[in-house]
Amino acid sequence: MNNSFGNIFKLTTFGESHGKAIGGIIDGCPSGHKIDFNFISNEMNRRKPGQSKIVTQRKENDSVEFLSGIFNGITTGTPIGFIIKNNDQKSKDYDHLKNSFRPSHADFVYEKKYGTRDYRGGGRSSARETACRVVAGAIAKQILKDISIYAYTSSIGNISIDENYEINKVADIEKSIVRCPDNKISDQMIHEVKKARKNGDTLGGIIKCIIKNVPIGLGEPVFNKLHSELGRAMLTINAVKGFEYGSGFRGTKMKGSEHNDIILKDLTTKTNFSGGIQGGISNGMDIYFNVAFKPVATIMKNQNTVDSNGNKSIIEGKGRHDPCVVPRAIPIVEAMAAIVILDYYLINKTKKIY
Amino acid sequence: MNNSFGNIFKLTTFGESHGKAIGGIIDGCPSGHKIDFNFISNEMNRRKPGQSKIVTQRKENDSVEFLSGIFNGITTGTPIGFIIKNNDQKSKDYDHLKNSFRPSHADFVYEKKYGTRDYRGGGRSSARETACRVVAGAIAKQILKDISIYAYTSSIGNISIDENYEINKVADIEKSIVRCPDNKISDQMIHEVKKARKNGDTLGGIIKCIIKNVPIGLGEPVFNKLHSELGRAMLTINAVKGFEYGSGFRGTKMKGSEHNDIILKDLTTKTNFSGGIQGGISNGMDIYFNVAFKPVATIMKNQNTVDSNGNKSIIEGKGRHDPCVVPRAIPIVEAMAAIVILDYYLINKTKKIY
Amino acid sequence: MNNSFGNIFKLTTFGESHGKAIGGIIDGCPSGHKIDFNFISNEMNRRKPGQSKIVTQRKENDSVEFLSGIFNGITTGTPIGFIIKNNDQKSKDYDHLKNSFRPSHADFVYEKKYGTRDYRGGGRSSARETACRVVAGAIAKQILKDISIYAYTSSIGNISIDENYEINKVADIEKSIVRCPDNKISDQMIHEVKKARKNGDTLGGIIKCIIKNVPIGLGEPVFNKLHSELGRAMLTINAVKGFEYGSGFRGTKMKGSEHNDIILKDLTTKTNFSGGIQGGISNGMDIYFNVAFKPVATIMKNQNTVDSNGNKSIIEGKGRHDPCVVPRAIPIVEAMAAIVILDYYLINKTKKIY
Amino acid sequence: MNNSFGNIFKLTTFGESHGKAIGGIIDGCPSGHKIDFNFISNEMNRRKPGQSKIVTQRKENDSVEFLSGIFNGITTGTPIGFIIKNNDQKSKDYDHLKNSFRPSHADFVYEKKYGTRDYRGGGRSSARETACRVVAGAIAKQILKDISIYAYTSSIGNISIDENYEINKVADIEKSIVRCPDNKISDQMIHEVKKARKNGDTLGGIIKCIIKNVPIGLGEPVFNKLHSELGRAMLTINAVKGFEYGSGFRGTKMKGSEHNDIILKDLTTKTNFSGGIQGGISNGMDIYFNVAFKPVATIMKNQNTVDSNGNKSIIEGKGRHDPCVVPRAIPIVEAMAAIVILDYYLINKTKKIY
Repeated sequence: MNNSFGNIFKLTTFGESHGKAIGGIIDGCPSGHKIDFNFISNEMNRRKPGQSKIVTQRKENDSVEFLSGIFNGITTGTPIGFIIKNNDQKSKDYDHLKNSFRPSHADFVYEKKYGTRDYRGGGRSSARETACRVVAGAIAKQILKDISIYAYTSSIGNISIDENYEINKVADIEKSIVRCPDNKISDQMIHEVKKARKNGDTLGGIIKCIIKNVPIGLGEPVFNKLHSELGRAMLTINAVKGFEYGSGFRGTKMKGSEHNDIILKDLTTKTNFSGGIQGGISNGMDIYFNVAFKPVATIMKNQNTVDSNGNKSIIEGKGRHDPCVVPRAIPIVEAMAAIVILDYYLINKTKKIY
Repeated sequence: MNNSFGNIFKLTTFGESHGKAIGGIIDGCPSGHKIDFNFISNEMNRRKPGQSKIVTQRKENDSVEFLSGIFNGITTGTPIGFIIKNNDQKSKDYDHLKNSFRPSHADFVYEKKYGTRDYRGGGRSSARETACRVVAGAIAKQILKDISIYAYTSSIGNISIDENYEINKVADIEKSIVRCPDNKISDQMIHEVKKARKNGDTLGGIIKCIIKNVPIGLGEPVFNKLHSELGRAMLTINAVKGFEYGSGFRGTKMKGSEHNDIILKDLTTKTNFSGGIQGGISNGMDIYFNVAFKPVATIMKNQNTVDSNGNKSIIEGKGRHDPCVVPRAIPIVEAMAAIVILDYYLINKTKKIY
Repeated sequence: MNNSFGNIFKLTTFGESHGKAIGGIIDGCPSGHKIDFNFISNEMNRRKPGQSKIVTQRKENDSVEFLSGIFNGITTGTPIGFIIKNNDQKSKDYDHLKNSFRPSHADFVYEKKYGTRDYRGGGRSSARETACRVVAGAIAKQILKDISIYAYTSSIGNISIDENYEINKVADIEKSIVRCPDNKISDQMIHEVKKARKNGDTLGGIIKCIIKNVPIGLGEPVFNKLHSELGRAMLTINAVKGFEYGSGFRGTKMKGSEHNDIILKDLTTKTNFSGGIQGGISNGMDIYFNVAFKPVATIMKNQNTVDSNGNKSIIEGKGRHDPCVVPRAIPIVEAMAAIVILDYYLINKTKKIY
Repeated sequence: MNNSFGNIFKLTTFGESHGKAIGGIIDGCPSGHKIDFNFISNEMNRRKPGQSKIVTQRKENDSVEFLSGIFNGITTGTPIGFIIKNNDQKSKDYDHLKNSFRPSHADFVYEKKYGTRDYRGGGRSSARETACRVVAGAIAKQILKDISIYAYTSSIGNISIDENYEINKVADIEKSIVRCPDNKISDQMIHEVKKARKNGDTLGGIIKCIIKNVPIGLGEPVFNKLHSELGRAMLTINAVKGFEYGSGFRGTKMKGSEHNDIILKDLTTKTNFSGGIQGGISNGMDIYFNVAFKPVATIMKNQNTVDSNGNKSIIEGKGRHDPCVVPRAIPIVEAMAAIVILDYYLINKTKKIY
């Protein structure tokens, strides 16, 4: 509950944006896996601030220090504790927020819920926490070596990839600083982001995630359907407003006779409106889903608000922030997907006794 | 896990579509509440088959028998066990499905996952299970008496309520057999459903749910945000393909400066794109969200498929089924929302010691 | 929490002593097991009232009605719902307890905790609830077919089996109505119980449980050690006051050099003071433990107490009760042990990915 | 599961004896509490090695570094992450154990369960992990300021305090290096421990814990009885072999008429054989229980064993170890008790809605 995610493969995280460190514990990691630390660093770099011109210039090297659970490079089955130090804290930047509630941030609700809060950089509500998820996801991805999980930006603001777009090469994703594999659309997105930043404004967008080679049978009826857990996982990511899998919201406009996925002799289906999941259980087809991100709440414009005494005040737009979080959220979406798939893979091992 | 939902107020369900009975246990229900059994029956009637001309004519009176946890009409704090007998079982109707996998149903994945299955009427994967959720939801709603939770049909197939539509009177919802409060749109929807049924086809749609008077502070960072739990809850309902709250997918196209909800002197917000939830915690504004339902997979047309021996076969379209589940899903959506809100209300009581 | 036990193989129970029925849901039962219903009845008969002259003469036939999760006699992997009707309710017997708090019963604490209670026969606090555990245990035992779990009475009041006693034949246990396999001691125990009953008094005792053929590796460090879960399981049984495994309390008086179990070439140990568990994990040797039961609180003598208004009153000794619960508790101890072992067997399957 | 303890107030720990650090995350700590860091250090000092002549001379200063969840000295309601560095690692001391299974240690079962292990100092199975519990317990104790929790040594080997002994002053406990408040018995215990150490041998013992001023109503029927959770908590501590509360094993020899605790007009009871808990729920009287510790498995004598290739080998007795862990286990017992009481206090807040 609260700061833990997963059932068997379980991540618990801690840490505030401007505290000494953030970190976590991965419990239930299967034993005997050789860990590729470079791969973990690489995943962290995909999320970290300062990676390109269109993201926040806050500098965190985000290096992970593992404290337990890995011995001679091999997972031992005991909990993996890790920390990521907060180096580039400019806490002073936040003094003006001590008594202020920023619009569409969590300042107000934390104050009311807990009666106190670490106001520096949003404290616990900061997306900095998601770095810990990328650590756990990078380990899950390695263990799930035959399953491929990748995500890309399918829209930013009003710039969208064609809805029937099919990705050609996964490697194309990383070639784009907005992580959109379609060259032309990628350029337009970059242009939009730059324009928004120039105006002190921000943009939202949609991430599409695809998971291939998932074994048949993952997902637990009734309340732990594979897609309800994926949906929950995505909705825990900062700024996410929606989730749809398979045909999603568009599927509501189809007829049953169009939407049904006819089963073929090889037990694959002719179409895949089901998105690889039927009755909450994977059927071996590709799993795919969309995740909606709102525009970042921190804008570089002055905004009216109230302070904690209920007096009107002005929030000044300053600090180092992302004009659009979507590109940096890609590895977070993938990480959460990997955690869910590994967790449900392990759960599924308990369905039969032999 | 699996067949339980909730943390403190927790529902566990059992039962197959054509077994002796379905039922459940509600654990963690607060003590001292007088139960209005008529209200529960009423909620059950809103979900039950045969309630109008446009739904399945299967007859289940769906009367709930409470076995424990309520003494002299008052909740005692001990688990509330209940059963709902399956009366109108026409299991013979399903003999032809014994060795067949229906398209876009869970037959195939259950067979692969468990090595065996109760094929009658979809067994555990049938939406009949949701009757148990309505029982728990009807109790939760009563306990949450100051909080109002209601849902309505906002689209069926291509017929949609205007996206800026605001409901006038909640009572209007039940006046429509499709549960759409806009008279004119309701008529169009009914027409569409009848047409689909005539063609042996089915339709999907979208349900909108609104929750008013939620206290500030419900929702647990990081992995139990109020909206991630609502999303998960909705995604566990049969046929659901998507969830969005507040501005949702449309919000991805807005700018931050448009999307931010300015906080007013009375601590309400000027707009409510946040959908009543910020950083995963309720802020006192209305919570609202949309739930996407795919068209029902059981159609009255013959479909190609394969049998469990891998041979091609034909599924005949027969039996008594809904051409569109959306109207009957309204009370299920409300029930799951009520369970989440009560559960998170109770969790929130533990955040401070006094 | 509360009314659920187990992690993967999970029992949730409901029901009051004098309600309509008690029952439960077994979630996470592996699929594909043929259920021997006679075996379940047999286990129920070992626990049921009225089975011999020295137990309560209350008549409950305790027949279990399964409602789901088993199809054509085979477990399907979906939740197994079951009920046991309360037939021989003499609720009138309890009218005098409505406003009274019986000494060493849960009446007072339920009243204070919940503000209300079902006072008939102790309501939820009655040991009648344990019938549901025997159902789940009987299923777990069948699935664990290579593992043998049995318990016997090692003491009643001051009559004890020799502490170095080793059981000869498991079948001898059931030949004794006090379930003590040593003929001579059994006779003395029966004599003691009859004497206590004649005096309107009650006795406690100790049950020893032995589990053979447990695979190496069950038990999860740190907080789910196999013995901590067995201990917890036993301590949830009504009237239990203590638990010890292996050398137990006597082991505190030994020296390390005496207590250490030397490992032999075949990887068994020379002695077994560890009780088959080291560091919380089974080592393949026999698991054994003792469970202490207090004398039954309901005695056939008048006792001083106070009523719910705080006035002094007298509790009359009447009704049909056990002078000693130990013999009937044997199948409950075995059932809880079986549930733990199966649960931990399934958990252990998730420790490695292949 | 596994490395987490608690439901609402929840501790998750990580770390091996000779890794970089051990640590943990406390989730669900109520907000708004001023933390007394000196008190935490003090509790750590009561557990730490090297504190007196009769314990291991391994030097760990055991200073706790808090990384999150406390802002300006006040708990914020967000998870409290902390680490304790392992300074005095003499890992080389353990090279001889790489391929050896020490008798009555967890070496063998870890190897079999996980296929790999950190053999240095017992790795995860080392009691070093319990330092993290003392941190969480020290915070729980502060929050439970009106409830007093203390434990003392009631026996070491064959030297026992009189079974009717009643403690005079709690402060007397800390005056004794074996933490026995009875001067004379304390001296005898110290003598025994010194004698054992001289012989290269070890001793076990019993700890008694007393909890005063617990509010009426803590404990959740059926499977989360207050005593079953306390029992489970104690049985997770390294070297514990048994738990009994109230009259415990001795109570099995009493008659019901002697054992029943008569309720007085002030709603206290005349006797307290129930140990402050009835039907699993606290009744306001003192809670007390005993915890049995086996003699330490590491002795300073050579022992026969087998290595991981199944060959006979000799374990040499060397290293820095405790001849008796009981004195240092006192703060661990108290810590686990405090965690349980706070957790159940918070759970109990959810039993009524207002």
